[in-house]
Amino acid sequence: MRKYEKVPKGFKFYGTHVGIKKKRKDFGLIVADDICHAAAVFTKNTFCGECIPIGRAHVENAELQAVVVTSGIANVATGKIGRENEYKILECLSNKLTIEEENILPSSTGVIGPQLPIDSIKGFLETESIILKEDYQDFAHAILTTDKRIKVRSLKIGEATILGIVKGSGMIEPNMATMLAYILTDAKIEKDQIYSALKTAVDQSFNTISIDTDTSTSDTVALLASGYYDVEPSALQVGLSQICKELALDVVKDAEGATKTMFVTVKNAASQEQAKNAGKSIINSPLVKTALFGNDPNWGRIAMALGKTEGLLFDLNKVEIYYGTFPIFSNSNEEKQNLKQIADYIEQNEDIYLTVDLHQGSESFEVIGCDLSYEYVKINSDYST
Amino acid sequence: MRKYEKVPKGFKFYGTHVGIKKKRKDFGLIVADDICHAAAVFTKNTFCGECIPIGRAHVENAELQAVVVTSGIANVATGKIGRENEYKILECLSNKLTIEEENILPSSTGVIGPQLPIDSIKGFLETESIILKEDYQDFAHAILTTDKRIKVRSLKIGEATILGIVKGSGMIEPNMATMLAYILTDAKIEKDQIYSALKTAVDQSFNTISIDTDTSTSDTVALLASGYYDVEPSALQVGLSQICKELALDVVKDAEGATKTMFVTVKNAASQEQAKNAGKSIINSPLVKTALFGNDPNWGRIAMALGKTEGLLFDLNKVEIYYGTFPIFSNSNEEKQNLKQIADYIEQNEDIYLTVDLHQGSESFEVIGCDLSYEYVKINSDYST
Repeated sequence: MRKYEKVPKGFKFYGTHVGIKKKRKDFGLIVADDICHAAAVFTKNTFCGECIPIGRAHVENAELQAVVVTSGIANVATGKIGRENEYKILECLSNKLTIEEENILPSSTGVIGPQLPIDSIKGFLETESIILKEDYQDFAHAILTTDKRIKVRSLKIGEATILGIVKGSGMIEPNMATMLAYILTDAKIEKDQIYSALKTAVDQSFNTISIDTDTSTSDTVALLASGYYDVEPSALQVGLSQICKELALDVVKDAEGATKTMFVTVKNAASQEQAKNAGKSIINSPLVKTALFGNDPNWGRIAMALGKTEGLLFDLNKVEIYYGTFPIFSNSNEEKQNLKQIADYIEQNEDIYLTVDLHQGSESFEVIGCDLSYEYVKINSDYST
Repeated sequence: MRKYEKVPKGFKFYGTHVGIKKKRKDFGLIVADDICHAAAVFTKNTFCGECIPIGRAHVENAELQAVVVTSGIANVATGKIGRENEYKILECLSNKLTIEEENILPSSTGVIGPQLPIDSIKGFLETESIILKEDYQDFAHAILTTDKRIKVRSLKIGEATILGIVKGSGMIEPNMATMLAYILTDAKIEKDQIYSALKTAVDQSFNTISIDTDTSTSDTVALLASGYYDVEPSALQVGLSQICKELALDVVKDAEGATKTMFVTVKNAASQEQAKNAGKSIINSPLVKTALFGNDPNWGRIAMALGKTEGLLFDLNKVEIYYGTFPIFSNSNEEKQNLKQIADYIEQNEDIYLTVDLHQGSESFEVIGCDLSYEYVKINSDYST
């Protein structure tokens, strides 16, 4: 991450304190000069936040002009009042910014259960003036809960720019539960292509990471395109996927209590889906994760996690397991001679690459996870609601 | 557990040290006077131990006369040599005990990867005499890996007795990975009914518990019936289910690093399967487990885990969540007035009862789990292969 990332043409930002958190910024806006082509993907959690169904409806026509984020309270499990509060915020903003309510995407992240302090928020919006800036920093700070840092990435494709801003680090603070990512570009993307462009990028990035298997109630990734520059679609897709991968990795690197990042590639599977499921089974195994934390080249646990993958059948005599470039299991046997080198490899590196070769097809998939440490237990237990 | 559990008629036991572990008992036998009607269920892990396919074949005709267990090495991922070693043990035992090889069920538990010290085992079996005892204690000790205690239960149904012996406490020691349970009875059970009787009991017991989501490579539950006494089938089923429930609870109570046991009942679901899946999603969530460890009445995480249950749809306005008898969430709102009582309830009890009422059907299911503590991370990371 550079000190200042590039900002695409046509977008401005805002971030301030409205009284949800005690002191820190808790209210953020992204506002486009005009209506953008847009797409968004949302959490699959049934117990989802009040913003999710509203956002889904607003982006259905592939148009958005603004994003509003409240942080500190997730507005989840708040019933009818929670939904009404969200509409009150949208109404105030619509009047203030002269933007149609249906062109605003709302997000909220923080504690599950409490209602938003709607009187404070309305009071602020009705009396204070909103000065939008070219700089994204106030916004990037305003959406954080207990992330250790803001996470922003940009890149150029020809004349166009893609900017991505994400928050999330697992379910960071107890009760906090959201990953929010906003991707902005001044490239032109057709309405009928923008969703699939986003979905492709998300499947290759955010959907390949897991910190603790727990699916947040408010996860949202939104893409807004202001349409100033023509870009070759395949180059744009590469750029979008790249930004999403960088942001996803930023989230894993900021994971609760994590000391190591594990990249697991399952090779030569019958299908990409099977390769992904097997990889997820490995990075999500508490026993694999604690072994990684302990610098233990415990390939038996990798084998166990591979074997328990739902719906995956394979010939265990063909399986090969590598740490880095060193085989630890092949030809149905432990490669004892490599144990010392592998132990050194795990101890000396923060990024650990694990490869499982199934030798049953030609599809591969990489997933990214992290270790399970004392600190994770501390962060998530040493707390009282 | 009583000091001495009752032993059904027709079974004898043996346990000794043959040289797999350093000092402790590592070789156990259950031998019946005659061929028993028998059934067994095995791990679904594809990367399973060499004993699993052999055991599956041997019990296929619903007959067994003996069980042999080696502990300290799991004989998993050991290839052709591993399989041959298992057959060598069976051959020795068959000669020694004059029991057909096909009537012996082999099990092995311990480290994944290494080969069994087959020369020591064969040497022992060819030279030492085996003196079978009425007492199960040597056997119960011989099958342990790092369990903190032996786990044995018995009950009477009319004249008949059911005895159950289990080992396992999660994937206790790093690399150790097995739950083994043996249920013995002198009741008569027909060959064509014994598998379904066992399956019913296992589904209501062992299949409702989870310590860390990781499925062992050698899990086995076997039932042997020596057939001395006639028992009413429904009474026998109740007894079998009862013994399996007690043994399953013993396993959770001996779980790695656990300080609390959590009983989660999902009520009024559309189907038992959905109720079970929702309950498992809750007891397996790292965030729910760490909150329990921290005595935190964090119902937001319960809601999150419920919501992420694959394939479960529900109306979140109808959901009610209870700790013990206290509602914490109902009518779409947090029941704030109960927070203090609930915090006390969690702090003061080792067994925590959680109920989720979906109000969408009439099916219920209870699952049992435990918390995630520093000690779990310690046990599973503070180790080098």
